[in-house]
Amino acid sequence: MTEMIYETVITTLNSDGTAHIAPFGVRERDGHIIVAPFRPSASLDNMLRARCAVINLTDDVRIFAGALTGRRDWPTFPATRIAGHVLESALAHRELELIAVKDDNTRPELTFRVAHEITHRPFRGFNRAQAAVLEAAVLVSRLHMLPPEKVAAEIAYLNIAIEKTAGERERQAWAWLMERIENHNAELRGDNLA
Amino acid sequence: MTEMIYETVITTLNSDGTAHIAPFGVRERDGHIIVAPFRPSASLDNMLRARCAVINLTDDVRIFAGALTGRRDWPTFPATRIAGHVLESALAHRELELIAVKDDNTRPELTFRVAHEITHRPFRGFNRAQAAVLEAAVLVSRLHMLPPEKVAAEIAYLNIAIEKTAGERERQAWAWLMERIENHNAELRGDNLA
Repeated sequence: MTEMIYETVITTLNSDGTAHIAPFGVRERDGHIIVAPFRPSASLDNMLRARCAVINLTDDVRIFAGALTGRRDWPTFPATRIAGHVLESALAHRELELIAVKDDNTRPELTFRVAHEITHRPFRGFNRAQAAVLEAAVLVSRLHMLPPEKVAAEIAYLNIAIEKTAGERERQAWAWLMERIENHNAELRGDNLA
Repeated sequence: MTEMIYETVITTLNSDGTAHIAPFGVRERDGHIIVAPFRPSASLDNMLRARCAVINLTDDVRIFAGALTGRRDWPTFPATRIAGHVLESALAHRELELIAVKDDNTRPELTFRVAHEITHRPFRGFNRAQAAVLEAAVLVSRLHMLPPEKVAAEIAYLNIAIEKTAGERERQAWAWLMERIENHNAELRGDNLA
């Protein structure tokens, strides 16, 4: 049986002290946090060098859609116990210290200790549009592997939840992903050739 | 443009003081909470009589799947400011007082004031399996309107997230919904006839 995976946003320290912001699926094991980035990864480089990271539990799906569409600049504030950056949109965050690395040429596995945790805002409930944006983001990250008809069919299904339940942030994130898919399809059709 | 809808669990007071537990999509408007139950509804009857309710922001998807499969008995504790019950699994809850009713023969719209709000536990991040359970619950609630092939195709898609990201609670909830679909299909085939 697989372990439960939560979709989060991890902020790591670039060598110049600025924040690198990237979505990551994370697992919990014996109270520790497991992150397994695929190489190459700026987040991985930062985690191995700084030996710390912040997990942001945010419901702002624009950050997930933005990471796939060239929008990675989001407001942050300084972490409390470690050198790091916390997303302003985080409902909660956890400050992590690296305690173990299982190296691998494809996908090393990093284990972190939770050094500090703060809850900023209450969970507002499930929103089907937020889930649809996340699923669309998964599709967009695999566009090069998927037939366009399959992508179109799944997007049509996900769009129902957007139409019925989205707020402003979800509509914005959805629009970014749809533009990305449209550009990809235009490339396949050769529309971008002069 | 539609308003954002959050999927929550509302607990209302039965006339004997016990809790009635039911999932509801809720909207926020000008700081108030809008709930629009379809008639007939035990929750509606309770809200109109007691003039209060509790919105539970829970990530325990068993409660959503359980409501469709005859499992409505979940642990609660007393609310703080109003007569009501709070789900033990709530990450946060809001205690509501009814301030307006727009009556309707099909779907009256109730407006509530937030009298009190408590955050119990931090949001843990998005989980694709939780979202898949909620989507499957929507399908199960509409089984009588949907062709079995459409249900099967969407379940196959949702099952990917279950396989990859579910924890114990999500697997349990998924199993309850799959059993419900299987029973429905057996009825369609006439397997239940002697």
